[in-house]
Amino acid sequence: MKNLTILFFLISIQVFAQTADEKQLKLIYDAALTEGKAYDWLNYISNQIGGRLSGSIQAQQAVDYTKQQMESLGLDSVWLQPVKVPKWVRGIPEFAYYETTPGKTTNVPICALGGSIATPAGGVKANVVEVHGLDDLKSLGRQKLAGKIVFFNRPMDPTKIETFEAYSDCVDQRYSGAAEAAKYGAVGVIVRSMNLRLDDFPHTGAMSYGDTPIKDWIPAASISTKGAELLSVTLKLNPDIKFAFRQSCQILADVLSFNVIGEIKGSTHPDEIMVVGGHLDSWDLAQGAQDDGAGCVQSMEVLRLLKKTGYKPKRTIRVVLYMNEENGLRGGIKYAEEAKTKNEKHVFALESDSGGYTPRGFSFDCSDANLAQAQGWKKLFEPYLIHLFQRGYSGADIGPLKNNQIVLAGLRPDSQRYFDVHHSANDTFDQVNKRELELGAATMASLVYLFDKYGVVK
Amino acid sequence: MKNLTILFFLISIQVFAQTADEKQLKLIYDAALTEGKAYDWLNYISNQIGGRLSGSIQAQQAVDYTKQQMESLGLDSVWLQPVKVPKWVRGIPEFAYYETTPGKTTNVPICALGGSIATPAGGVKANVVEVHGLDDLKSLGRQKLAGKIVFFNRPMDPTKIETFEAYSDCVDQRYSGAAEAAKYGAVGVIVRSMNLRLDDFPHTGAMSYGDTPIKDWIPAASISTKGAELLSVTLKLNPDIKFAFRQSCQILADVLSFNVIGEIKGSTHPDEIMVVGGHLDSWDLAQGAQDDGAGCVQSMEVLRLLKKTGYKPKRTIRVVLYMNEENGLRGGIKYAEEAKTKNEKHVFALESDSGGYTPRGFSFDCSDANLAQAQGWKKLFEPYLIHLFQRGYSGADIGPLKNNQIVLAGLRPDSQRYFDVHHSANDTFDQVNKRELELGAATMASLVYLFDKYGVVK
Repeated sequence: MKNLTILFFLISIQVFAQTADEKQLKLIYDAALTEGKAYDWLNYISNQIGGRLSGSIQAQQAVDYTKQQMESLGLDSVWLQPVKVPKWVRGIPEFAYYETTPGKTTNVPICALGGSIATPAGGVKANVVEVHGLDDLKSLGRQKLAGKIVFFNRPMDPTKIETFEAYSDCVDQRYSGAAEAAKYGAVGVIVRSMNLRLDDFPHTGAMSYGDTPIKDWIPAASISTKGAELLSVTLKLNPDIKFAFRQSCQILADVLSFNVIGEIKGSTHPDEIMVVGGHLDSWDLAQGAQDDGAGCVQSMEVLRLLKKTGYKPKRTIRVVLYMNEENGLRGGIKYAEEAKTKNEKHVFALESDSGGYTPRGFSFDCSDANLAQAQGWKKLFEPYLIHLFQRGYSGADIGPLKNNQIVLAGLRPDSQRYFDVHHSANDTFDQVNKRELELGAATMASLVYLFDKYGVVK
Repeated sequence: MKNLTILFFLISIQVFAQTADEKQLKLIYDAALTEGKAYDWLNYISNQIGGRLSGSIQAQQAVDYTKQQMESLGLDSVWLQPVKVPKWVRGIPEFAYYETTPGKTTNVPICALGGSIATPAGGVKANVVEVHGLDDLKSLGRQKLAGKIVFFNRPMDPTKIETFEAYSDCVDQRYSGAAEAAKYGAVGVIVRSMNLRLDDFPHTGAMSYGDTPIKDWIPAASISTKGAELLSVTLKLNPDIKFAFRQSCQILADVLSFNVIGEIKGSTHPDEIMVVGGHLDSWDLAQGAQDDGAGCVQSMEVLRLLKKTGYKPKRTIRVVLYMNEENGLRGGIKYAEEAKTKNEKHVFALESDSGGYTPRGFSFDCSDANLAQAQGWKKLFEPYLIHLFQRGYSGADIGPLKNNQIVLAGLRPDSQRYFDVHHSANDTFDQVNKRELELGAATMASLVYLFDKYGVVK
C-alpha cells in the first residue's frame, strides 16, 4: 500500500513536471513569436552596420551595439573579452575574364578568397587546367600545372539532403586548393563557389596556405557557379584559352577585437556555466544576416526569453558572441583558454551557425546518457515541429570547449537555402524570415531551459 | 523447424522488400534533385504566362502549355476535361485613402476581393467601424453600422506554429464579411490581409455574398497589413475619419475552361485510379508561383519521376491539374462528378496546394488502417527529413472525391513563409527555391509509389 502511494506520488510529480515543461515551452514560443526582439536586432546589425569582417570598423560597431543591447536586457553582467584577430582586407573590387582569342574576352564574376594574397598589380593571366579536386593535382603533376591557373570545379552534390554534407565534401578545394596547387608551380587558383544554385554570385570563404613558404604563395579566387559552368564548357571547346584575374587584397597586422558576453547568474549552481552563442564577425561581401547575424540575435534572444517568461535559471546562462569564426576562430579559442585559466566549469554549450531558417532540431556532441536525455524531451518539442535529436556536429566556436563532461549542441535549421547566400553578396536581411528566426530562438531557449532544469547527466 | 524456415523466409522478404523500397526512394529523390523538370516548368508558367485567374487568357495558355509538356513525357494518355468556370475581372487598379480632415488624405494599398462587385464609379466614402470578427457585427447592430464601411481587422495568430491554422481562424472575415455586414446596412467592407508579416501588399482571395439579395451586395476589398495597422491607430486617434475606396471589378458570364489530365495505365489493376494534383488557376495579382504553380509542376514531376526511375505502376496513376480552385472549385467538382458518372474507382488522391517549400510530410484523410500503413513507412522517409504522417486536411480539389474507401492526402511543406506571398503581388517565381520544390515532388512520388506497390487497405 505504501509502495502504491509512492508510485502515485511519483506519477503525479511526473505528470505535473511534464505539464510545467509544456507550459514553459509554450510561454517561450509565444513570447518569441509575439514580442520577439531578434528580428529588430538583426535588422540593425544587417542594415545599419552590415558586413563585419574581423578587424573592420563594422565588427567593432557590432561589438558596441550588441553589448549595449545586452545591457538593456537587465542581465547580471555584460562584458567584453579582448582577443587579437587577423585583419584581411579585400581592397579594390576583383576583376576576371577569359580570352578565347586575343582581344575577345568574356568577363566572369569572381571574388578573392579570404586570406588570399593579391595578384601582381597587372593581374595574372595564364592557361587554365580544370580539375575536380585536390587528388587530380598529383596525377597531372608539375609538367601540366606549372605556370597555369588551376580551376577547381567539383560541384556540391545535390543528392545530399543536408546541404552541409555537400559543403563538407567540397570545401577542401577552397581551403587548401592554393596551397596544393602551389606545390606544382601553378600561378593562381580559381575555385567554383560553394553554392548549389546556378547564379552570378561568387562566394568567398577561408583559405589557408598551410606550411607553404611565403615566396610560393599564389592568389586564390572564387568564381560564381554560372561562371564556373561557362568556363568549363569553354575549356572543352578550346583548352588553350587564357584566364586573367586581378585582386588587391592584403593581409595586415593583427588587431584588438572582442567577444561580447552577457550572463544570468545561476540561482543554485552558479559555478556551472551554460553557453549559448553565435559568431559576430561575418564576411565582407554582404550583411552576414544568415551567417551569422541570425545566430547572434537568436542567442541574445534566448536570455531575453528566459527572463521574460520569468524563469530563474539554476545554472549560469551565458550568451557569447564570438569574434573571428570566419577566418581564424580566435574568439572561440580565446574563450575556451580563459575558461580553463579561470577554472570555470562549462557543462553545456549550444551554437547557432547554420542560418536562421525554420528549426528542425539539434545535433549533439556529448555522452550517450545526455543524448538519451535530450531525446527523452522530443515529445515536448513535437507541437513546434522540432524532430531532429541526433548525434553530430555542434559548432566551430564552441568546439574548443570540448571535454568528456560537456554537452555540445548545434541548432539544426532547414538547410536547403543556406548555401544560396552563404559568404556571398546576397546574404542580406531580406533573406531572413522573421518567424523562422524566432522559432529558432525559441527552440534554443527551450533546450537551454530543459538542460538547466534537469541538469547535465554526469 | 518448418515454422522457423517460413519465419526466415518472411524475414528475408521483409528485408528484401525494405531494401527495394529504400532503393526506389533514393532513385526518385536523386532524379528529382539532379535532373528535375519541375523548376523549369514553373519558370515558364510563372514568368512566361503569369497569373492565371479562371477564364483569363493566361489560364488557357497554362492549359495548353501543361498539356503539351505532359504529352512530351510519353504518358499513356493526356486529355482535357471541359469545365465551365466563373469569370471575374479586376478592371482598373483599385484606389483607397482615408481622410483625417477634409483634403488631408493618406493613401493605403488595397485590392478588390475575388468575387466582389465594383464600387460606384466615384467610389465609396464613409466613416469606418473597426471590428475583430463577424460576431462583433451583431452586438454593434444596424444603428452603428448602417452607412458605414466595416473594417475587419482580426490579425492571424502568430503563436500558431502551422500558419494554415492561423489562416483558417481568420478567413471568415474575408469570405463572409461583406455578406454579413450588408445585413446591417454597411456600404462597404475592408478586410485586413491574411498575412502574418507587416508589409504593403494587399492579399486578395475568394469572398461570397451567400444568399444576400443582389440589390444588397456591397463592395469588399483587402488592405495590406501595414495599411490595416495604420488605419487602426488612426481610428483610435480620430474615430470620425472618412475612408474612401474605388474598384471597378466585374462578374462576367461563365466561360469554358479545362482540367488538364495525364495518366500512366496500371499494369495489374488499371481500373484502380490514383490521382496526384494541384490547381492550375491562380489569383491575378502575381504569378501564382507558390499558389499553386508549385503544386502543378510537382504533380507532373511525380509521373515523370516514376517513369524515369523505371517504375511500372500496378494501378493507374493520373496527374490532374484542376481549374478554378481559387474562386469556384469547379474543376474539382467536375472531375469527381465525371468519375462518378463513368463509375471510375478512385483509391487514392494526393494534392499539393500549400506551397513548394521544404516538405515535412503529409496529412491524411482516410481510414485508421491506411493511416497506420502510411505511418509504417516513416522510417523509409527519415533520410529525407520527412517526419509528419498525421490525420488532417488533404486538399480542396480532391475533396469532392471523398468516400469511405479512398485515401486522401495533402503534402505538408514548411508553412512559415507561405502567407507572406499567398494571393498577393509577391507570389513570384523567385520566392520558390529549386531544391525545396524538387524535394516536395520526390516526397509525393515516393508516397504514390508506396501506395501503388502495397495497395490501399480495404
